[in-house]
Amino acid sequence: MRIARFTKDGDLSFGVVEDDDTIATVAAHPFGEIQFTGERQPLADVRLTAPILPNKVIAVGRNYAEHAKEMGNEAPAEPLIFMKPSTSVIGQREAIVYPSLSERVDYEGELAVVIGRLCRDVPAERAAEVILGYTCANDVTARDLQKKDGQWTRAKGFDTFCPLGPWIETELDPSDLAITTTVNGETRQDSRTDKLLHRIPELIEYITRVMTLLPGDVILTGTPEGVGPLEVDDEVSVTIENIGTLTNRVISRD
Amino acid sequence: MRIARFTKDGDLSFGVVEDDDTIATVAAHPFGEIQFTGERQPLADVRLTAPILPNKVIAVGRNYAEHAKEMGNEAPAEPLIFMKPSTSVIGQREAIVYPSLSERVDYEGELAVVIGRLCRDVPAERAAEVILGYTCANDVTARDLQKKDGQWTRAKGFDTFCPLGPWIETELDPSDLAITTTVNGETRQDSRTDKLLHRIPELIEYITRVMTLLPGDVILTGTPEGVGPLEVDDEVSVTIENIGTLTNRVISRD
Repeated sequence: MRIARFTKDGDLSFGVVEDDDTIATVAAHPFGEIQFTGERQPLADVRLTAPILPNKVIAVGRNYAEHAKEMGNEAPAEPLIFMKPSTSVIGQREAIVYPSLSERVDYEGELAVVIGRLCRDVPAERAAEVILGYTCANDVTARDLQKKDGQWTRAKGFDTFCPLGPWIETELDPSDLAITTTVNGETRQDSRTDKLLHRIPELIEYITRVMTLLPGDVILTGTPEGVGPLEVDDEVSVTIENIGTLTNRVISRD
Repeated sequence: MRIARFTKDGDLSFGVVEDDDTIATVAAHPFGEIQFTGERQPLADVRLTAPILPNKVIAVGRNYAEHAKEMGNEAPAEPLIFMKPSTSVIGQREAIVYPSLSERVDYEGELAVVIGRLCRDVPAERAAEVILGYTCANDVTARDLQKKDGQWTRAKGFDTFCPLGPWIETELDPSDLAITTTVNGETRQDSRTDKLLHRIPELIEYITRVMTLLPGDVILTGTPEGVGPLEVDDEVSVTIENIGTLTNRVISRD
């Protein structure tokens, strides 16, 4: 099932995408058993937003060996976690705003996990129970500020620096999916999720030993090698097999 | 005005503390013009919770010179920001849970700023317009994990690691207040907020050049020198002049 969130005539709703071209409106939220309003309309007639507005976004650094290497780092023995603020989240076709404070903004295509239930201390073998589904993410990063600050909050926390979408796929085996990132149609990242060093069940166990996760919270699982710069007017797309393609254009602030 | 949040008979409400011993119930929320329900009761009859549940907590590292020095760091030229998850927030008299993953958990008493309005790109000279008020905070930190991880999210992100309270003081000049932290009644930190390297208006300008702040978001302004360990059963109190005292006991996980 593909869970999306959309606006139509000023109303914001969750919906389920059917047959690639129709969206059925969800009555309240997609956690637990989904109730429908009965309304259905062409997908082309609505505007998709981020499929979820998370309370928190927990991201994992250096989780593909080749990416850790290209950045001159060793792959960490344990997951390296950091946060992006909820105010950085945007959705399909919303614009990434290039901040005036940075001169080097990079894309980082990633598989995102959306949490379905409040949870704490989840053992890896039960991680599937707390997952609502999966979506595409772009962990946009001001690379110059990341190096300068040491802590990554500013570099990764700008408004619009966390595109998510286009929807949440709930029926998916995430263990070995093709993941690619293109800029203006040219392939820049091309890997598979079986190369994740710390896999999703382990990440959920690790994170929930520290903090409670809430329904809608998002985990970004890390980016493969091939990260590189974005420029104003670029169109960047993250495609994950059996989920879809998340596309965003870069605009200047002014 | 002192804005608190409290539970009584299972209901959670905002309230205004009057004459040190009475709480008047607020009809909805404390942003904008406050409406009262007319209900008032003895402060002693209610249980205070965190005075706000922030969407995000932005904290500032190394913002007192003597604290940067005691940790072997230089004071940064620009504010060093990081985040604590909303799930780490607790209130007055709620317990700090000592995690089994750490062997060194420190208190860090801090002045906290509570944001009153959605805002972005706020110039320092207009910062006062976006502030609801001030409260006491304890930026509890697993010091061993902070050193090990490099990124501070895990070390500072455990559930219960962000005590806030007892209330939000809205009429306050925060520029030169005594701030002390005691453990079991012994003074461990004793400084004044006039020693903040990056002051509150500058912090708000700096943070809002990066990210939108929402009503209820909290900025922790940094801790003075004297940080040190907490042990299970310790009682830690952060007192700020003209605000009050935030007290929490440390308990073990099991």
